[in-house]
Amino acid sequence: LSANEHRRRASDLVARASRGEIAAIGQLITGLESGSPLAKWARRPLHERGGNAHIVGVTGAPGTGKSTLVGALAKELRARGQKVGVIAVDPSSSISGGSILGDRIRMQEHTLDVGMFMRSMSSRGCLGGVSRATVDAVAVLDASGWDVVVVETVGVGQAEVEIVQIAHTTIVVSVPGLGDDVQAIKAGLLEVADVHVVNKVDRPDANKTMSELLSMLMLGGGPVPGGWAVPVLGTGAHTGTGVPELADALAEHMAWLRNSNQLEVRERAAAGARVRAIAKDLLIGRFHDPPMGSDLDLAIDDVVARRVDPHTAALRLLELVAVSS
Amino acid sequence: LSANEHRRRASDLVARASRGEIAAIGQLITGLESGSPLAKWARRPLHERGGNAHIVGVTGAPGTGKSTLVGALAKELRARGQKVGVIAVDPSSSISGGSILGDRIRMQEHTLDVGMFMRSMSSRGCLGGVSRATVDAVAVLDASGWDVVVVETVGVGQAEVEIVQIAHTTIVVSVPGLGDDVQAIKAGLLEVADVHVVNKVDRPDANKTMSELLSMLMLGGGPVPGGWAVPVLGTGAHTGTGVPELADALAEHMAWLRNSNQLEVRERAAAGARVRAIAKDLLIGRFHDPPMGSDLDLAIDDVVARRVDPHTAALRLLELVAVSS
Repeated sequence: LSANEHRRRASDLVARASRGEIAAIGQLITGLESGSPLAKWARRPLHERGGNAHIVGVTGAPGTGKSTLVGALAKELRARGQKVGVIAVDPSSSISGGSILGDRIRMQEHTLDVGMFMRSMSSRGCLGGVSRATVDAVAVLDASGWDVVVVETVGVGQAEVEIVQIAHTTIVVSVPGLGDDVQAIKAGLLEVADVHVVNKVDRPDANKTMSELLSMLMLGGGPVPGGWAVPVLGTGAHTGTGVPELADALAEHMAWLRNSNQLEVRERAAAGARVRAIAKDLLIGRFHDPPMGSDLDLAIDDVVARRVDPHTAALRLLELVAVSS
Repeated sequence: LSANEHRRRASDLVARASRGEIAAIGQLITGLESGSPLAKWARRPLHERGGNAHIVGVTGAPGTGKSTLVGALAKELRARGQKVGVIAVDPSSSISGGSILGDRIRMQEHTLDVGMFMRSMSSRGCLGGVSRATVDAVAVLDASGWDVVVVETVGVGQAEVEIVQIAHTTIVVSVPGLGDDVQAIKAGLLEVADVHVVNKVDRPDANKTMSELLSMLMLGGGPVPGGWAVPVLGTGAHTGTGVPELADALAEHMAWLRNSNQLEVRERAAAGARVRAIAKDLLIGRFHDPPMGSDLDLAIDDVVARRVDPHTAALRLLELVAVSS
C-alpha cells in the first residue's frame, strides 16, 4: 500500500473505532503492537481524539486475585452504564514471551456485551515491549469513547511502572497472609496507590492486613496535603463484596483530580514519561538499522577487545544519532 | 577536585582494588553507583583490566531460597580456592527504593574471609537504576581479580534481564509446590537457564518438579545443538546437599563456553546490550539537562494539549540530541 492508502486506512479505522466497532479497535491495537505502517498514521488521529477515559491501573503481587477483582469491577461499572475496557498485561517474562491466560477465561462472560472490551497483552510479538503496546492499546480505547479503561498488571517490573505513570487512578491489591518476599513487592507499590484493596477479605486475618496497611499509610504521612485520603477497602471478588464501594472510590478519586490541579500534574507527568520512553525505543531502533548498524558492530568490537569501555562507546554512538536520521 | 586529581584518585583506587583491598572495591562500587566524578575516570581502567571472572547469574521466583543457596555455593567455591564475589540485587520496586536485607544477614558469616566479597544493591540512590549499578559492581570485581562473581536477582523485571545478558552462566532456581502465578514467572525464565536447580529438594514433591523441568527442557528441543545439555540439579541449601555438584556444573559450563564459540557469542551480546543500555540512559539524561530541558517542557505542552502525539514529539527531540551535545 502507498503512504496515502495507509493514511486513509488508519483514519478509516480510527473513525470506525470511535463509533464503537470492536473489530476496528482490535485491528488498531494489533497494528500498533506489531509496528505495522498503519501505526505511523493512526497515532496522530488517536491522540487527537483521546483524553476522555478514566484510566485505572490495577496492580499487586501474584496470587492476590487481581483478575477476578477486575472482572467484578468491570461488571459493576457496566451496571452503572459505563463502557469499560480491560487490558490485562500478561505476567510473562520479557525474555520468554511465555503466556498464561488462565483467569482471562472467566472474564469472557462479558464479551457478548458491546460496552465491554477485553484484551490480554503478552510480550510475544510486541515491538518495543509489552509496556509500550499496552500504553498504545489504552490510547486506542481512550480515543474510541470508552469511559473507563482498566489496565491490570502484575506488580513488579518495568511494565507496571510505565502503567502507573499513565493511570489516573492506581489500585494496589493485597491479600491477607502472603509470604515475606511477596509482601515486599507489595511494599514497593505502597506509595503509588490511590486506592488500596485487600481482596479475599473473608479470610480470618484480613482485618490485620487492613490495619497494617492503614498504619503504613499513617507512617507515610497520612492523607496527601491537598488532600486525597487513600482509602483501604476490603473486597471479596468472587462474591462481589465491597466492589460497589471500590467503584465509588474510583469516581471520587477522579472528581478529586478534576477539582484540584492534580489532573494536570498527572497528565504532564504521563506525557513526559511517554515521550521519554518512545525516544529511547527510537534510539535503540536506529542503532540496529542502517546506516548505524555497522557503527554499533564496530563499537562492540572495541568493547569486547577492551580497547574502549562501554560508556565511551555509548557516548560516541549517541553523537552519531542525529546525523544518521 | 580537578579533573586530574579525579583521574589520579580513580587510577589509584583501581590499582588498590586489583591488589584485593576491600575498602577500595567498596569505594569504587559506591562511586559508580552514585555517578560521582570518580565514575567517569574509573570506567576505562576497570574495563581494561576486566574479562577474567566467571560471571554467574542466579535467578528465580521469590521464596525459592536463592540467598541461602548463593551462600552455600559461595562457601563451596571458596573451599575450592576461588575468590568469590556476591552481588545481591534487592527485589524492591523501582518506584519505591524499598529494601529488604533479611537473608543477607546469614551471609555475613563469610565477611571476615578476604577471598569473599558481598554487597547488596538496592535501587535507592542508584543513578540509572539498580541494573546499571549492578553491572558496574560486577565490572569492579571482575577487574579486581575475583575468580567468580555471583549476581543474585529476583526473577522478574528489567534488572534480571540485564543481568542474564552479562552472565556467562545463568542458574534458575525453582522449588517444589509454588503457586501458579509464581510458576509462571519461573516459566518465563526457563529458556535462559544454563543450569536448573530445584532447591529444597528434601520436600516430598521435589522429584515431580525435577521431572517437570526435564520434560519442559525436552519439549524445548533438549540439549542445544553444539551442545550443552542443561542439567537439572537438586539442592538442599541449608544442608549443603547437591552444592558440590552445582559448583562442578558451573565449571563444566565455563569449559564448554571456552571450547565452543559460545564465549565469544555471549561476550559480544553482553557488550551490545551494555552499550545500548548506557546510550538510553545518556539520552534521557540529556532530555533533563539544559539546554534540552526546555525542549522537553515544550514537547510536553504540545502532547498534553493534544496538538502533537507522543511519538512525533519523541522523534523531534531525538533530532535535537546530537546538536545539544
